[in-house]
Amino acid sequence: MALRLTVLDKIIAVFKKHGAETIDTPIFERKEVLTGKYGEDSKLIYDLKDQGGEILSLRYDLTVPFARYLAMGKISSIKRYHIAKVYRRDNPSTTRGRYREFYQCDFDIAGQYDPMIPDAECIRIISEALQSLDVGPYTIRLNHRLLLDGIFAACGVPSNKFRAVCSAIDKLDKNSWSEVKKEIIEEKGLDESSTDKIGIYVSRFGGIELISELRKDSELMKYESATKGLESMELLYKYCNILQVTDKVTFDLSLARGLDYYTGVIFEAILIGDDVGVGSVAGGGRYDNLVGMFDSKHKSIPCVGLSLGVERIFNVLETKLNKEGVKTRTTEVEVFVATAQKNLHEERMKLLSILWDAGVKAEQSYKRNVKLLAQLQYCEESGIPLAIIIGEGELARGEVTLRDVVSRTEISIPRAHLIEEIRKRL
Amino acid sequence: MALRLTVLDKIIAVFKKHGAETIDTPIFERKEVLTGKYGEDSKLIYDLKDQGGEILSLRYDLTVPFARYLAMGKISSIKRYHIAKVYRRDNPSTTRGRYREFYQCDFDIAGQYDPMIPDAECIRIISEALQSLDVGPYTIRLNHRLLLDGIFAACGVPSNKFRAVCSAIDKLDKNSWSEVKKEIIEEKGLDESSTDKIGIYVSRFGGIELISELRKDSELMKYESATKGLESMELLYKYCNILQVTDKVTFDLSLARGLDYYTGVIFEAILIGDDVGVGSVAGGGRYDNLVGMFDSKHKSIPCVGLSLGVERIFNVLETKLNKEGVKTRTTEVEVFVATAQKNLHEERMKLLSILWDAGVKAEQSYKRNVKLLAQLQYCEESGIPLAIIIGEGELARGEVTLRDVVSRTEISIPRAHLIEEIRKRL
Repeated sequence: MALRLTVLDKIIAVFKKHGAETIDTPIFERKEVLTGKYGEDSKLIYDLKDQGGEILSLRYDLTVPFARYLAMGKISSIKRYHIAKVYRRDNPSTTRGRYREFYQCDFDIAGQYDPMIPDAECIRIISEALQSLDVGPYTIRLNHRLLLDGIFAACGVPSNKFRAVCSAIDKLDKNSWSEVKKEIIEEKGLDESSTDKIGIYVSRFGGIELISELRKDSELMKYESATKGLESMELLYKYCNILQVTDKVTFDLSLARGLDYYTGVIFEAILIGDDVGVGSVAGGGRYDNLVGMFDSKHKSIPCVGLSLGVERIFNVLETKLNKEGVKTRTTEVEVFVATAQKNLHEERMKLLSILWDAGVKAEQSYKRNVKLLAQLQYCEESGIPLAIIIGEGELARGEVTLRDVVSRTEISIPRAHLIEEIRKRL
Repeated sequence: MALRLTVLDKIIAVFKKHGAETIDTPIFERKEVLTGKYGEDSKLIYDLKDQGGEILSLRYDLTVPFARYLAMGKISSIKRYHIAKVYRRDNPSTTRGRYREFYQCDFDIAGQYDPMIPDAECIRIISEALQSLDVGPYTIRLNHRLLLDGIFAACGVPSNKFRAVCSAIDKLDKNSWSEVKKEIIEEKGLDESSTDKIGIYVSRFGGIELISELRKDSELMKYESATKGLESMELLYKYCNILQVTDKVTFDLSLARGLDYYTGVIFEAILIGDDVGVGSVAGGGRYDNLVGMFDSKHKSIPCVGLSLGVERIFNVLETKLNKEGVKTRTTEVEVFVATAQKNLHEERMKLLSILWDAGVKAEQSYKRNVKLLAQLQYCEESGIPLAIIIGEGELARGEVTLRDVVSRTEISIPRAHLIEEIRKRL
């Protein structure tokens, strides 16, 4: 938890820097809210037992509840973050720290705005967050759903199979092309020649130059969604350049994202040279039609957002800290109040009361009599920087001994100067 | 959420000052873990649908999961806080801001320690938290389960009815004695004469002097649990005195607490002169046997803890802020970047990139062209202290206009000095 909270605090600082507020939604939603939003994965939703009243499920992500919240509250624009737990009945690898309950960490911008201005800021935010977390080198893969649709059309995919092919291509980060090809042909029912054409497209990646290369593809340029997608990518690159994140992005035609609801730019951040194989550590994209699914008049609010894969980031950082032998402190205690003789526990409590009044983070043993050595060992093990030692001699002289736990040096000081001395040292 | 997070941050600061770490437990527990822990209220537990695997329920409080966690992890001592949501299928007053999902905010000390040292610290923590939240005057009611048991025995209550009578007396904060008396006689099956004797005892409250008064009660002093309870109360008062919270406590024989698992001191904080009738804003006590219920060898870990009623505190503070006309900001934006003419949105983005790099919390409109007046109005409504205005003239001169939003004063400064000037003003 100590590591997790440090990570989340850094991420929240980035979200706040970009002017986001935070909201909260209940852990359960009416079952019908979640139905039909997650495709094949709907079977992984946790349902509550019918004990009377509404039929409820546990939230599966934070995006669908956010869209429902916007529609119900008739909110036409908001920039919000939401860090909370979500629930999936899958079989995660618990040895790799993945559970059926896990944190999601989302930032979204909702509102009718001009093209790519909020989208580019999302990319900048991912970059700032990963930078501030010091997870090592990364790249943010970019693509556009309209461009993918154009490519699929140019390859002869019927439009009712676009999303199914997307979800197959999404697996290219874990599976080889030959496995994905097999899935497209056997499960999605596409012919081999179309599939091979797709295979050539999705092998392409690079920088902004890919835009002009694709524009030379006259077959592709026949499709309006392809030309529109490329126009958007061009504008996005322009803004990424202004926001100084161009060196952090890769235009990657194999990026598809599994979820059905994306309608524009999509992105995903991966760590580079990562031997743990954590995969993506952030992802997101534009989803302009989701809110409309919850509005009685189907009025939609355009949205773009990102999700940081904090569980993976926790693992990466934990592994890193373990390698470096860094021990994370679980408390923030600054001063431990110890006694050198028996029956002085009331003196410890008197002193603690003064320390707490002064705002000093301080504790003692809850036992009346403990060996001094045991108290000092506890300080060293817990990383507490300072110890105050009270003995009968000190009491008689109106003094205390202040010990620096790391250097093991001690000085005697008058009680009246104690708080001042502690503040100087912290 | 902005108000809630402010409240929780202040509480967490107090918990950390007392050296607590934090833990997290899953939102669901195996159903059997919760069974038999909450008496009559068990019917309010939310169950998950049986979709295969374990039979699960949503946590009802944070204490039982904590006890389960200690037993499973063989943890013999810990001082932890846990702030999280719990779930109850009751019918709360939603108009008063109470829901079936609500925050609990717990601090507990587990371990084999000397009498009343951790217990007194819990009282001090409640006092510090309520003080730092500025909720107005309060008192912390104290009582002891052993003393109550002694009183019940002296009044002729059979020991198998102690907990049932306790749970009836617990309602004295909402119901009159005649209602409680009726419940004890009709529902708990006690005779009228015993009930009347109880009525006299539970009407008594005061300070430390109540201890010596009760010691004169020779009938009561025949019962060991009563003498032991009074001894504990005496020690608790001594430590409360050292920790300087005696003026914040009331010894109140009508305090019973509903839950079965308390075994020693019990306490509850109420606001004084509170016309909203919020009732208790904190409560807790010692529960030495709960952990043993989860240990295969019934080995228990003594525990004492407190729970802050943060939902009630949120309401009290929200009402207070509304009365005072204080508007809570939902973001922390420091600088808004505005443009005075059309088609300067890229200049805004360039400047934002510099501000973000410098760690300044800054935002803009996501529209390319917005009227300057609309941008400045937004700043005033959102409480953003500073606005930067870029116009063609400023750009040509390498300057920007920095506007103080409240005073509406503006100065022109060279771009090179902007960050420095902003830092000076924040």
